[in-house]
Amino acid sequence: MSDIIEGRNPILEALRAGHPINRIILSANVQRHGVIGDIINLARQNGIPLEYVAESVIQKISISNSSQGIIAYAAMKNYIRLDDLISISQNKKEPALYCLLDGIEDPQNLGAILRTADATGFHGIVVRSRRAVGLTPVVAKVSAGAIEYVPVARVVNIAQTMETLKKAGVWTIGVDATGKQQYTQIDYKLPTAIIIGGEGEGISDLVKKRCDSLAKIPMKGKITSLNASVAAALVMYEAYRQRSS
Amino acid sequence: MSDIIEGRNPILEALRAGHPINRIILSANVQRHGVIGDIINLARQNGIPLEYVAESVIQKISISNSSQGIIAYAAMKNYIRLDDLISISQNKKEPALYCLLDGIEDPQNLGAILRTADATGFHGIVVRSRRAVGLTPVVAKVSAGAIEYVPVARVVNIAQTMETLKKAGVWTIGVDATGKQQYTQIDYKLPTAIIIGGEGEGISDLVKKRCDSLAKIPMKGKITSLNASVAAALVMYEAYRQRSS
Repeated sequence: MSDIIEGRNPILEALRAGHPINRIILSANVQRHGVIGDIINLARQNGIPLEYVAESVIQKISISNSSQGIIAYAAMKNYIRLDDLISISQNKKEPALYCLLDGIEDPQNLGAILRTADATGFHGIVVRSRRAVGLTPVVAKVSAGAIEYVPVARVVNIAQTMETLKKAGVWTIGVDATGKQQYTQIDYKLPTAIIIGGEGEGISDLVKKRCDSLAKIPMKGKITSLNASVAAALVMYEAYRQRSS
Repeated sequence: MSDIIEGRNPILEALRAGHPINRIILSANVQRHGVIGDIINLARQNGIPLEYVAESVIQKISISNSSQGIIAYAAMKNYIRLDDLISISQNKKEPALYCLLDGIEDPQNLGAILRTADATGFHGIVVRSRRAVGLTPVVAKVSAGAIEYVPVARVVNIAQTMETLKKAGVWTIGVDATGKQQYTQIDYKLPTAIIIGGEGEGISDLVKKRCDSLAKIPMKGKITSLNASVAAALVMYEAYRQRSS
């Protein structure tokens, strides 16, 4: 299954038709007006990341040799807007329950988190648009179908998103080894967004500072961190357990 | 990092020196006497799986073109014997706590399970020697160092291993959607082996029949199974929680 769309007109048509797109890469040499200009504008309006790369990179990725210096990566499903995610919780008449991913890059982890989110009744996931994996074909496969059921919002900035959520009355709980509370001591019956850091560096400092609380997962061994999808699952299941009891 | 050893004498020397080996593949054409005969005997004595493949497969895998029809895959660490795993629990003067993997094939999952096992104080992991991933370089990397701390036994047959563990007083708990009890209702303070099924088919029927109990993880969504390393982590953390309280 190819997930790339090549060439100016096919990409413009895909954008106009509202096809889900993860990101667009452009040759640094390409003229940024005309059809390319239209693509850039539409991508910006829809929050689709644009990345400029060397012409040789485009040529290497191109299958058809008709890329005209631009390639789009199709997503397996449309992202929703943050506002729509907030509406989902309101329509369910349940306190919000979100999982924010601050830079998950491994498709195996995102796929596993989507499965757990479906299993635990989370209203949706928020992913970063840059330096993070999106709803790629691999994620769809690993999610074992969960990608169809779990809404995913994509945002430029997790810290700003937290401010928006706070204004909507949502508590932000970062999962981090420096947390003072155990993750089982948090009250998840309140409107809650849990924040999981990326595989390499965990939660970024700016995001960490904005968290209402930091919660830690106890570890009695020698290593200092769990797999990101495992950490997410432990906290998500604790929230599910509290809300079921 | 290459993890393969090629040719009759290098492989025989590696076996004699006790280097950890995951498995050995041989060309179906190769003569099974002399040095090859010695290799086959040593591999069998040490529980190393042997697999006969077409000569073209060997040629494709060979880097040096000096394979002489035989290639060994090095492991990143030696496996221990089941007896030694049982001794570890006895020496710790703690009730046994093991995780048996009935066919985990994805190195990401084995690596994540090793991390969780270290974090939760499990005494060791048991893996199957066939149709399952071993202690490969990818597993070592994904385990983030946990491979150094968590003993791993490799066995031909999980069902037989369960009989040995039962004779040693260990309760066998299969994690399976058909379970009548919730995983949180099991008493993990007793000597316990939890059994996690493979990614595709879950726990095999024979193994399921031998379990003292089957425990299920609640799921409120539309999909029917969690990622294997996530399921393992939820049960392992419940065991850790019970033993800490």
